[in-house]
Amino acid sequence: MGTARIVFDRWDGRYAARMTDVRSSAVRDLFAAASRPDMISFAGGMPDLGGVPTEAVAAAARDAVLYEGATALQYGSSEGRPALRATIVELMAEIGVRLPADDIIVTAGAQQGLDLLAKVFLDPGDVVIAEGPTYVGALQAFSAYQPDVVCVEMDHGGMRIDLLEVELARLGPRGAKFIYTIPNFQNPAGVTLLPERRRRLLELAREYDIPVIEDDPYGRLRFEGGHVKPLRALDDDVIYLGTFSKIFAPGLRLGWMTAPHPILAKVLLAKQAADLCGSAYAQVTAERYFAGTRWRRVLQGLTRTYAERRDAMLSALEEHFPAEVSWTHPEGGFFVWAEMPEFLDANTLLAEAVEHGVTFVPGSAFYPDGRGRNCMRLAFCYAEPAAIEAGIRRLAEVIEDRLGLYRAFITAGALPAVEGGAA
Amino acid sequence: MGTARIVFDRWDGRYAARMTDVRSSAVRDLFAAASRPDMISFAGGMPDLGGVPTEAVAAAARDAVLYEGATALQYGSSEGRPALRATIVELMAEIGVRLPADDIIVTAGAQQGLDLLAKVFLDPGDVVIAEGPTYVGALQAFSAYQPDVVCVEMDHGGMRIDLLEVELARLGPRGAKFIYTIPNFQNPAGVTLLPERRRRLLELAREYDIPVIEDDPYGRLRFEGGHVKPLRALDDDVIYLGTFSKIFAPGLRLGWMTAPHPILAKVLLAKQAADLCGSAYAQVTAERYFAGTRWRRVLQGLTRTYAERRDAMLSALEEHFPAEVSWTHPEGGFFVWAEMPEFLDANTLLAEAVEHGVTFVPGSAFYPDGRGRNCMRLAFCYAEPAAIEAGIRRLAEVIEDRLGLYRAFITAGALPAVEGGAA
Repeated sequence: MGTARIVFDRWDGRYAARMTDVRSSAVRDLFAAASRPDMISFAGGMPDLGGVPTEAVAAAARDAVLYEGATALQYGSSEGRPALRATIVELMAEIGVRLPADDIIVTAGAQQGLDLLAKVFLDPGDVVIAEGPTYVGALQAFSAYQPDVVCVEMDHGGMRIDLLEVELARLGPRGAKFIYTIPNFQNPAGVTLLPERRRRLLELAREYDIPVIEDDPYGRLRFEGGHVKPLRALDDDVIYLGTFSKIFAPGLRLGWMTAPHPILAKVLLAKQAADLCGSAYAQVTAERYFAGTRWRRVLQGLTRTYAERRDAMLSALEEHFPAEVSWTHPEGGFFVWAEMPEFLDANTLLAEAVEHGVTFVPGSAFYPDGRGRNCMRLAFCYAEPAAIEAGIRRLAEVIEDRLGLYRAFITAGALPAVEGGAA
Repeated sequence: MGTARIVFDRWDGRYAARMTDVRSSAVRDLFAAASRPDMISFAGGMPDLGGVPTEAVAAAARDAVLYEGATALQYGSSEGRPALRATIVELMAEIGVRLPADDIIVTAGAQQGLDLLAKVFLDPGDVVIAEGPTYVGALQAFSAYQPDVVCVEMDHGGMRIDLLEVELARLGPRGAKFIYTIPNFQNPAGVTLLPERRRRLLELAREYDIPVIEDDPYGRLRFEGGHVKPLRALDDDVIYLGTFSKIFAPGLRLGWMTAPHPILAKVLLAKQAADLCGSAYAQVTAERYFAGTRWRRVLQGLTRTYAERRDAMLSALEEHFPAEVSWTHPEGGFFVWAEMPEFLDANTLLAEAVEHGVTFVPGSAFYPDGRGRNCMRLAFCYAEPAAIEAGIRRLAEVIEDRLGLYRAFITAGALPAVEGGAA
């Protein structure tokens, strides 16, 4: 099965209106192509699992069933297990957020948190403010509830708060249902919101009375510079989404949400409707992993691995990419964002890149409105440094080829048409 | 945290319109009360895990990580793992449904299937046809998409198809978005849809061009009588929901959906937006459990256990319950449905029952509109036979006490007022 297959649909016209806005994730569609053995993938943001202590996790899995099977295999509470929420309390304290376990619910990855918040807050036509570009999974989750997503540009210091202020002034108090932000090593842009901008963002959110959703999957994967306090550490009303996918393993589908109680109560109702409760089996396994292994050491090793890969990518970009392309310099996380001249279309380029054995995600996937066509997200998290070097070299050749076609025009003073139709 | 706590909500008025219709599950709210050690619970439909071969499941869990950790701990496909879908193909073949693995997607329990189908099909005000009473989790899942749920009465042979036909004639062709039915050992009524009614239901669905959703969590837990083919075995267009929660363990949160491809493609998009993908960890564990253990023997033992408990409940009801109360005689599954005289209110009764150390779910939880107040769902799946006998005795005393109050009136020829206000 699959979305690409063309099948006569006798149910056409019978689906909910929201489904016209729900689109397939370009990232997930790329997974199939990326499975070719010689393919170097900068596409998916899949964490490296090489450093995960398999024996220890296997023991946690076995013991979860052997010693806690009566609860691990049974239905659980919708909020999540107290022991895992206690672990999350510790994790939050380590990044500067003190809160009781009661302020936390366990979700099926941070993605479920996004879906539940959209379900709880969004009526069709409501405004959501997000960074542009932003996480494709957030756009997907939101789109089912038919909001109008307003994108605020970023620079090297994260979301441009001056532009946010302009949008807020235009929309007025309570003019948006929420502001969605990924302050640390943003997906896809790789930039981090400056501390003074965090404070200003929160002031503006208070002034305009708009809830803030802070999505922080990569916060603990910092390669350089000092820890920047999350928004939630500065303001108790911030809704915070965390995940075990990047500090442990995505295969357990475990994340969490912290939010003020009235919001959490609504989210909990939405969660009951969505799946009754999360997997107790996965939760007990995670509890035992965090209680019984030196997970901080594992995380440090993982961070070193990602740092090496980031370095490999930045060096390769410096060495091979044409002068016409610029890119971000992430201090952590998974992603570099590259911007080509406006007349180049990353979607067209992708087909050629795949032929040359390298994939990435075209920038337009990260906007609700087709912007970002001349951009690409380059994930450095999954490939080894040597493969990163080779992949960037291949990609540079593809871009060079295409730029070469235009250089003659440019030299002649003619402006090339934008590829792939209207931008 | 919890929905019962009263907190000033400064976000009041800012939630989506759909949240006004989403209510808490009375069943889940009862879980807290049911955790008193001396409490005998007929409330939750929690499967008995006593027969689950803990060592074998623990080995499956360990091996999932040890030998397949690279995929079990990673993100997976949204459709679900091919190996688990192959297992599901076998399970479906055993109940008379032959279909390729491509027609199946893995969900987080059947509950996620209900949520995704509602998301894909329902606009506010759309009509859904269901049995009345029906599964509380389905009502909860649907309510977030604001449909008008029309309930069709049942008798000992399941949904009354004559009444369904009346509703369909009233609504006209395509007058409902779908018909939702639990044909086997219905939750909460315990009745099973007769074979000839299954055929007629499908004819009518074709005639009025309305999709049918068949929810079949209990189908393999039959105590007596012959297997009745599922609707999906009679019509390829039926959307079928299955679950591992009752034949293996709910703690893994694994279920499945089969549907025609165009519908499945939409559901898959909705699933990506909801949680990206299911837990590969849980899926690999289930694959190994079904491949490596004598799970059919476990299921046979489980079915015997439930049959004994059903027998214990039916005997106790016969012996202790007042003549004014009637109840169903399920041939399988988890539930008996009891109906008291109309002037008794099961919600009021529940408070007294809890004081006497026994719980159940009041009937109104299973209707969208407050009907069923004089009814109760009695789950026999979780308590041991001796506890069932004791619990029914306690419950009978509570009902007797209350009936006694009214018998004097009735003898005097006066009609008692309905308890608890308007029915």
